[in-house]
Amino acid sequence: MKPFGRYRTHGAGTLRDEHDGETVTLAGWVDRRRDHGGVAFLDLRDASGIVQVVADAGEGEAEEVLAAAHDVRGEWVVQVRGTVRRRPEGMANPELATGAVEVAAESLDVLAVAETPPFPLTERVETDENLRLEHRYLDLRRPGVGDAIRLRARITSVIREVMERHGFLDIETPMLTRSTPEGARDFLVPSRLQPGSVYALPQSPQLFKQLLMVAGLERYYQIVRCFRDEDLRADRQPEFTQLDVEASFVDEEDLYGLVEELMATLWERVLGVEIPTPFPRITYEAAFARYGTDAPDTRFDLRLTDLGEVFSGTEVGVFRSALDEGGSVIGWRLPDGGQLSRKQFDGWVEFAQRRGAKGLAWGVVESGEGGSGPALRSPLSKFMADDEITALLVATQARLGDAIFFGAGPTRQTQELMGALRVAAAREHELVPAGKWAFTWVTEAPVVEWNVDEARWEAVHHPFTAPTDDSLHKLEADPAAARARAYDLVLNGTELGGGSIRIHRRDTQERVFDLLGVGHEEAREKFGFLLDALAYGAPPHGGIAFGLDRLAMLMADKRSLRDVIAFPKTQSGSDPLTSAPAPVDAAQLRDLGLRTLPKE
Amino acid sequence: MKPFGRYRTHGAGTLRDEHDGETVTLAGWVDRRRDHGGVAFLDLRDASGIVQVVADAGEGEAEEVLAAAHDVRGEWVVQVRGTVRRRPEGMANPELATGAVEVAAESLDVLAVAETPPFPLTERVETDENLRLEHRYLDLRRPGVGDAIRLRARITSVIREVMERHGFLDIETPMLTRSTPEGARDFLVPSRLQPGSVYALPQSPQLFKQLLMVAGLERYYQIVRCFRDEDLRADRQPEFTQLDVEASFVDEEDLYGLVEELMATLWERVLGVEIPTPFPRITYEAAFARYGTDAPDTRFDLRLTDLGEVFSGTEVGVFRSALDEGGSVIGWRLPDGGQLSRKQFDGWVEFAQRRGAKGLAWGVVESGEGGSGPALRSPLSKFMADDEITALLVATQARLGDAIFFGAGPTRQTQELMGALRVAAAREHELVPAGKWAFTWVTEAPVVEWNVDEARWEAVHHPFTAPTDDSLHKLEADPAAARARAYDLVLNGTELGGGSIRIHRRDTQERVFDLLGVGHEEAREKFGFLLDALAYGAPPHGGIAFGLDRLAMLMADKRSLRDVIAFPKTQSGSDPLTSAPAPVDAAQLRDLGLRTLPKE
Repeated sequence: MKPFGRYRTHGAGTLRDEHDGETVTLAGWVDRRRDHGGVAFLDLRDASGIVQVVADAGEGEAEEVLAAAHDVRGEWVVQVRGTVRRRPEGMANPELATGAVEVAAESLDVLAVAETPPFPLTERVETDENLRLEHRYLDLRRPGVGDAIRLRARITSVIREVMERHGFLDIETPMLTRSTPEGARDFLVPSRLQPGSVYALPQSPQLFKQLLMVAGLERYYQIVRCFRDEDLRADRQPEFTQLDVEASFVDEEDLYGLVEELMATLWERVLGVEIPTPFPRITYEAAFARYGTDAPDTRFDLRLTDLGEVFSGTEVGVFRSALDEGGSVIGWRLPDGGQLSRKQFDGWVEFAQRRGAKGLAWGVVESGEGGSGPALRSPLSKFMADDEITALLVATQARLGDAIFFGAGPTRQTQELMGALRVAAAREHELVPAGKWAFTWVTEAPVVEWNVDEARWEAVHHPFTAPTDDSLHKLEADPAAARARAYDLVLNGTELGGGSIRIHRRDTQERVFDLLGVGHEEAREKFGFLLDALAYGAPPHGGIAFGLDRLAMLMADKRSLRDVIAFPKTQSGSDPLTSAPAPVDAAQLRDLGLRTLPKE
Repeated sequence: MKPFGRYRTHGAGTLRDEHDGETVTLAGWVDRRRDHGGVAFLDLRDASGIVQVVADAGEGEAEEVLAAAHDVRGEWVVQVRGTVRRRPEGMANPELATGAVEVAAESLDVLAVAETPPFPLTERVETDENLRLEHRYLDLRRPGVGDAIRLRARITSVIREVMERHGFLDIETPMLTRSTPEGARDFLVPSRLQPGSVYALPQSPQLFKQLLMVAGLERYYQIVRCFRDEDLRADRQPEFTQLDVEASFVDEEDLYGLVEELMATLWERVLGVEIPTPFPRITYEAAFARYGTDAPDTRFDLRLTDLGEVFSGTEVGVFRSALDEGGSVIGWRLPDGGQLSRKQFDGWVEFAQRRGAKGLAWGVVESGEGGSGPALRSPLSKFMADDEITALLVATQARLGDAIFFGAGPTRQTQELMGALRVAAAREHELVPAGKWAFTWVTEAPVVEWNVDEARWEAVHHPFTAPTDDSLHKLEADPAAARARAYDLVLNGTELGGGSIRIHRRDTQERVFDLLGVGHEEAREKFGFLLDALAYGAPPHGGIAFGLDRLAMLMADKRSLRDVIAFPKTQSGSDPLTSAPAPVDAAQLRDLGLRTLPKE
């Protein structure tokens, strides 16, 4: 692409052999300058790459250029006119795309001088992240850092292309809206026109996109900022970006097909990788049973094994009591885990304890004495009958030299523990294949789960998710058994996004509200407009939402969401660049009908 | 386009002659139902249009279908399977795109029932806007209303295509940021993590886009939500959308070219209209002199005429004193204005008085007595010499039967008055050609203007706008004469957008801050990060921003911004649909370190 703007004829990084002899004008930053035998070499950098500029000794103009080249320093902004020439024999730089050529400078103008940056603008820096974020405009000049932002822009561009190809309309929903039921997490925005009243920033445009379906707009998408005012975990941002999708007259298969096409196109166009579709599907229950999580990492198999049958008559105390109390005994095989040291095994036991488990048992499969079948070296083996051990090895498919870990206790809790162990141990022992992209649909989550602390039913997805046709009748009779027409897309063990077919009938929506204990007045107050809308003829509809930051992070192969956000916030929600948030001004508050609380 | 989703095989509005005999499945809303001779006719509506569905009398299945068709009511959601057939001879409906055919229903399923809407879903409704916004999901079903939202989506799609064709990257900037100098208008967002501190919602991403240029990202665009917490004028929204653009190593011509290509592509692709480029340009001063505004409506010519020379020796008292005090006498010719009644002239005098003018004089060009040259019928004519009248007619190009209006007073004020008169009178007397699109660049605005009330210099664009090279030296000596490298794009008298080449040198930026009376501490506090950034090598850069809502409104030929926003707010900043903003909850405030002010 010809560079945009009159300051140059070519991008620095685009010059090649074929430009030999051409007069070019370049503009960019001095990446590096060095002098060698009366010749000045500048590496000139712009968004397209780097090229070497040479100022030879000479007379008249050449002398001036050399003098100017002597003066410039790193990160100065310069404009150079010169002639492209092949580098002398043996001087080509194969590490640079432009390494076969250089530009012999005929003029050099300084467009802006620069102070020395507070940290080196190299790929790896040791500098404290706060300092880098404070100077984010320099941080983004570092190799790889700005690239992640460019990659993200490519991602959004491809997303839009795919969505619009299928007739989805980019429709903007309000940012200044009303506090939602999960109100505790809303950012509030006081209104000057109506002092004492507040808007809320949206956690998602869920209700608005459903209303757009009721309005007959049929296909909606938006790449939209969402907000959540909560304690920031290691890698959360108070504002984040969502790809939000909703369509009318669709079922699950329509959305699977759309999303699979979207992902395949993204991977092909952005990463040049072909990913097979359709994606495998697994039910929510099966995901917990096999992987101990609803976001399974399926890059590697190594499933959990339910050992309830194997140990139905067990004399191992912890197994016995877990099973008697309706819980589970779950095993997980670590291939060649027999090589682990005692200390390593202890490490995994601690790992389990840190997660609140009472303990974690383990055993190693060894040859039995005197040529008999394999035996289990384990503190527990003396409580196990031979046929139990045989059944155990069959069930877990364990082979000589493998280790088996055992968890016992309440089922879901034990699944989650063993699932966490599976992922952590597979990573530590390098059982996760590199460069693999494993997508999985997780389907049929429950409609509700019992919240023990608050003693009430709680939506697993959200209150607008449709129950499956065959579990509609369970909403009152056996809520825990009702399945939702919900789906999550999981990639390499990370939830990329989730969605559902929504309730489109008012009576069903009211039944779900009843189940969730949303009183009629509360429902009226908070969701009145949705209930009203459902009364006026809503089409069957459904959608999905993806965390764009996370998607970009995975595709850019970065470790933090902050790496794919141009101006991210720290863990305390601060922006070291602008010093936001800033202490509030009393006069500003007064206009809003507010004042600060006295210090306690 | 094949409709998305399994509920149908075709869009209702896509059926034509060529589908004769095909079995189709449709889904949508019942637009209208009527019975006629034992046959039920349904107009079935979806996003693609409307088609007539017929349920004939018959036996077995047909009877069931007819019964079902009898039951359905307007706005119910139904799915219909049937066969497309040509309508009987003479029964075609030319007003409907599908009018040549109808669908003979073989099955009809009700997907959702609907209550009767609170207002008719017809093109024109008398209903109060509040009620319509409260049921916006119904309002959007009305013909033309949803179409404006669809048109807007097409606009954003074309914008993205053009920007990305030129290598511009869609980069997101923060929504939770820091209060800017025009802080009085910021929406504040209290932080739960840092009670007593606030974020501000951005009025524009100005500083961030400049920082992206300093970061070397070179080409940025974003379709971005911005916020302004101020009294809402008749047609303002507290949140609005901006097309925001910035590029490095560019000058004005680069941006003119880009924007002209963008507009030409938009008009061609969205409206099918070819608009000529390049657009005419006019300086800020010339715009005021000729049109009395910096946003001239150039669909019609009818310029203002400075009459200072004509009346240099005038004995008309108000002209004399205006000129003696350094002000102006300005004339405007209304073609055939001689036909205006006395009452109409009085109306224009009142128009001027409402705008704060002392008065407005007028005259009508008539034939002189006894075959002499034209004469001026005016209360003022007795104070005018014959040669003044002759010079006046030459200067204004007035002809027999025209009226001439005269304003006198301080120059800018008089220009503005006459400019407002020009537009209002041209509209009233239908001198504005229909269907014309007149784009104009307005250039070379002053860098600063004197704010009389606050007795200080104030930026005309914003403090980051670069002065022209040849007025840099005037910043201290003669600030009012310094011209900015700024440009506004005006369409049919409405400012579509504006931008500038920015200051990219720290010393210049500091000089402008000094001129604006931004103290060093204040500059440090509020713009420190920009000044810092400029110290580290900023490229020459510039950009532009457009009000997307206004652009969409003009292209959709709507009268209000609310017509092109899916969920707009009323003039008091309320959303009748969600009842936002809502009274704040004391507990929520407490978490933010805030409480309400006691009522006074």
